[in-house]
Amino acid sequence: MSDIIENRPLVEKYYLKLSPPGLDDQTSDLERVRAGLKACGVEEVDAPLSVAVSIPRVLRESGFAVTVSVGHVGRPRLLGIEPGDTTGRNFGLAIDLGTTNVVGMLVDLSTGGTVAESSEVNPQVALGEDVLTRIHYCLNKGGLEELRARAVECINTLAARLAEKAGISPQEINCMSVSGNTTMAHLFLGLDPYHICRSPYVPVANRFGRIGAQEAGLDINPDGIVYVLPNVGSYVGGDVLAGILVSGMHSRKEVSLLVDVGTNAEIVIGNSDWLLVCAGAAGPALEGGVVRFGMRAMPGAIDRVIIDPASFEPKYSVIGGGKAKGLCGSALIDLLAELFTVGLLDGRGRFAGPAKSARVIPYEGRAAYIVVPGGESATGQDIIITETDIDNLIRTKAAMYTVLSVVTRELGITFMELADFFIAGTFGAYIDAGKAVTIGMVPDIPLTKYRLLGNSSIIGACRVLAGRDETAELDRIASMITYKEMNVSTDFMSEFRAAMFLPHTDSSLFPGVQN
Amino acid sequence: MSDIIENRPLVEKYYLKLSPPGLDDQTSDLERVRAGLKACGVEEVDAPLSVAVSIPRVLRESGFAVTVSVGHVGRPRLLGIEPGDTTGRNFGLAIDLGTTNVVGMLVDLSTGGTVAESSEVNPQVALGEDVLTRIHYCLNKGGLEELRARAVECINTLAARLAEKAGISPQEINCMSVSGNTTMAHLFLGLDPYHICRSPYVPVANRFGRIGAQEAGLDINPDGIVYVLPNVGSYVGGDVLAGILVSGMHSRKEVSLLVDVGTNAEIVIGNSDWLLVCAGAAGPALEGGVVRFGMRAMPGAIDRVIIDPASFEPKYSVIGGGKAKGLCGSALIDLLAELFTVGLLDGRGRFAGPAKSARVIPYEGRAAYIVVPGGESATGQDIIITETDIDNLIRTKAAMYTVLSVVTRELGITFMELADFFIAGTFGAYIDAGKAVTIGMVPDIPLTKYRLLGNSSIIGACRVLAGRDETAELDRIASMITYKEMNVSTDFMSEFRAAMFLPHTDSSLFPGVQN
Repeated sequence: MSDIIENRPLVEKYYLKLSPPGLDDQTSDLERVRAGLKACGVEEVDAPLSVAVSIPRVLRESGFAVTVSVGHVGRPRLLGIEPGDTTGRNFGLAIDLGTTNVVGMLVDLSTGGTVAESSEVNPQVALGEDVLTRIHYCLNKGGLEELRARAVECINTLAARLAEKAGISPQEINCMSVSGNTTMAHLFLGLDPYHICRSPYVPVANRFGRIGAQEAGLDINPDGIVYVLPNVGSYVGGDVLAGILVSGMHSRKEVSLLVDVGTNAEIVIGNSDWLLVCAGAAGPALEGGVVRFGMRAMPGAIDRVIIDPASFEPKYSVIGGGKAKGLCGSALIDLLAELFTVGLLDGRGRFAGPAKSARVIPYEGRAAYIVVPGGESATGQDIIITETDIDNLIRTKAAMYTVLSVVTRELGITFMELADFFIAGTFGAYIDAGKAVTIGMVPDIPLTKYRLLGNSSIIGACRVLAGRDETAELDRIASMITYKEMNVSTDFMSEFRAAMFLPHTDSSLFPGVQN
Repeated sequence: MSDIIENRPLVEKYYLKLSPPGLDDQTSDLERVRAGLKACGVEEVDAPLSVAVSIPRVLRESGFAVTVSVGHVGRPRLLGIEPGDTTGRNFGLAIDLGTTNVVGMLVDLSTGGTVAESSEVNPQVALGEDVLTRIHYCLNKGGLEELRARAVECINTLAARLAEKAGISPQEINCMSVSGNTTMAHLFLGLDPYHICRSPYVPVANRFGRIGAQEAGLDINPDGIVYVLPNVGSYVGGDVLAGILVSGMHSRKEVSLLVDVGTNAEIVIGNSDWLLVCAGAAGPALEGGVVRFGMRAMPGAIDRVIIDPASFEPKYSVIGGGKAKGLCGSALIDLLAELFTVGLLDGRGRFAGPAKSARVIPYEGRAAYIVVPGGESATGQDIIITETDIDNLIRTKAAMYTVLSVVTRELGITFMELADFFIAGTFGAYIDAGKAVTIGMVPDIPLTKYRLLGNSSIIGACRVLAGRDETAELDRIASMITYKEMNVSTDFMSEFRAAMFLPHTDSSLFPGVQN
């Protein structure tokens, strides 16, 4: 096998130097282009009329030296023809269509490299905070169209901004790959998500095939193509498949585990023979939803905290520098772990009295810890973490641990047997695995096994743009997946209660955590 | 091999009784439909978004008993979904896109039968009488778009009229097949025909693939598909391929000949091993172009004439009955043959003097024959045929015979060796082969060998609608064709001059013609 890595983008440009027609060669213009492509190994290209019409002019203006763009989702399809050699200008847009945040990355398809990145709050948020409220919103007349239009508009905004950053025209973007959960994919395509959240929980479609840019309402090359990552039923979306793809766990003999912490948390466990996916509502506290000063990982968010064990004074870092506005998920885990480690917080999540540190203050009849005094914060307000916040965080981490514990036990696998423990999600890029172990959110296994994937949803979408064979790989992953409903049984609930302690009521499960 | 003829229309409807989803079967709606189709032998159906969006509603409104329409040009494609069993309502429109006349036939795809027929004068005529002037018209700004719009509008008019005749909605027309010459196909699709008439005579495309109804601007099912019959270079259009298909000459060991007399005349000669096509400008006189009272074969046209050898009085029939307006091509051939046979006309095309018949009158310094006196005609004007008309007709028939003679001689084939002599074109439906032999337009072979195909362009288009395998057959025919330019050499010209006589200066070539 050759080690040469071939660049096989979703849309490929081919520079063709064709011989001009003559009385001895009356091949039609389109067939001439097709023959040129065939010589490059591209057979039987479909040619939409909108592209075919420009072929005669471009061929003759360029002296029959042209660059043609061919889309490779399903049958090869002609997406454009330009005079001369423009193979160096070929762009794709990867989109992570999150419930809360939409991230776009402009990819140079001639190299596979990322050119520019940007994100936007999903404007659907104003019509519904989460997936369920948005599905409900579709019951309004025109609701689905309104949600669709907002997603499309948001992506168009990102496309225009990224094109401007890169000094290209948005029309030079030949393709787009979109990764999101099942509901987001449906809303983006205008497919009714009604049955996604209603028994028997059936999506309209799992695989979306090749979609035209114009058909999808996107302001890129109107003949460009859109690939939406497939989903596997109502609860396993393309974002999860992207995570698996990026982790590579589906290609290894050893069993690994992947946790994708977004607005919801999905857990994947498996290897090259099988993949099991479970979903749980573990995430909100870590995405800034239910914590007073919680916020998403973005500029102004504290992402890391350490507390001096002697003075109980914190040191922290802020994403993007400058004054702090709030605490993102990784900072919350750090805080919980540090407060517990230095002894300001007990295993039940209760603060030691103010005598121990002036930073611990009474708050709404309970206690709180001042992370940033008002004089140092961006808002002028104290940034604090309260016992109520901590209760929520402990509930979140306990839910996560319980799910991990139940799933592995049912499969007869111990945590120690896991080859790797992948953490995906934007949040996952900042997490300190050691701290997550300290609070008993994830199991006490060697820290080297923890692998942070970052926003694997967009990384996966980029991978597809740069390598079209990944679409088949995603189909293969989809076919391997079994979805498991978490039974919130009596057993689960008693385990959950036992996990509502730092790190756990059964300290033998966390031998490495000292307190 | 089985003798059962399977109905395999271009768009096929499948009635699917699907099991509803349940917690034990969470297949998505689209995949459920795909699985149903797979059970009918249809694999991997593409589903455009516009159709996919309606699937959930239609499935549930119908209790999961639905009819889906699938287009079979290239990869199978979902064109619609309807509740219940509508397999009996599936319609296609065949179009003969002639330079002068556009004919439409509505086909019931569930049976393959024709439901209704109608025709319109091609509204492009007002912008250019023939192919060359229309190509020239495209040099005007917006000219191509204007011509395209007229063709599309004309077809939409026919679609609406035929749908009304048949008591269906135009949206129930799921597909269209369009047969025309290369220029007409280009104009219909908005492809620039500039190079068709300029050396080296290269069309934009020969095969057009699957075109969307909406893309083509057609007011039928917007997700419907349009198939344009392929052409072979600038001079051999889909209409010629349709003629070959209908004749079946490409599937027989014996060599046959086909003459397609339209605005131009094409000659095809060959068998199952090879096909040679020649084109010549033989037609105009027979389509009413250069004969004073000539007209197309339509209501009011005289199509048949006989002349009493004693009284020299004519008897004639009029298409559609009623009073006569003019003479169509078959009547012109009849007249020429009859006038010659009864001795009113000599071999050079000169009338005997008025002493012989009062119907022969002096006209513009020459002579003419009154076919219909003004008192009996629709216009109140005498319908006559003049010596100048006869000169034009003789030139036309001589050109036809010379081309036939030159081509067969070059191939080393005698006329007597031909298994069949097919005559295609609307004109061809009315022609009396014996009369055509009498004037020396076609060779003196047994009359049983003459086979009139009628408008084989539209018959071929109907065949494609009713049998999708014919698209592959047309591709096969296209691949077999060699186009031969007629060299207007000295040899050709001297033969042409020898043929400008009734039936021919060399009477041994027409032993059966008595005078």
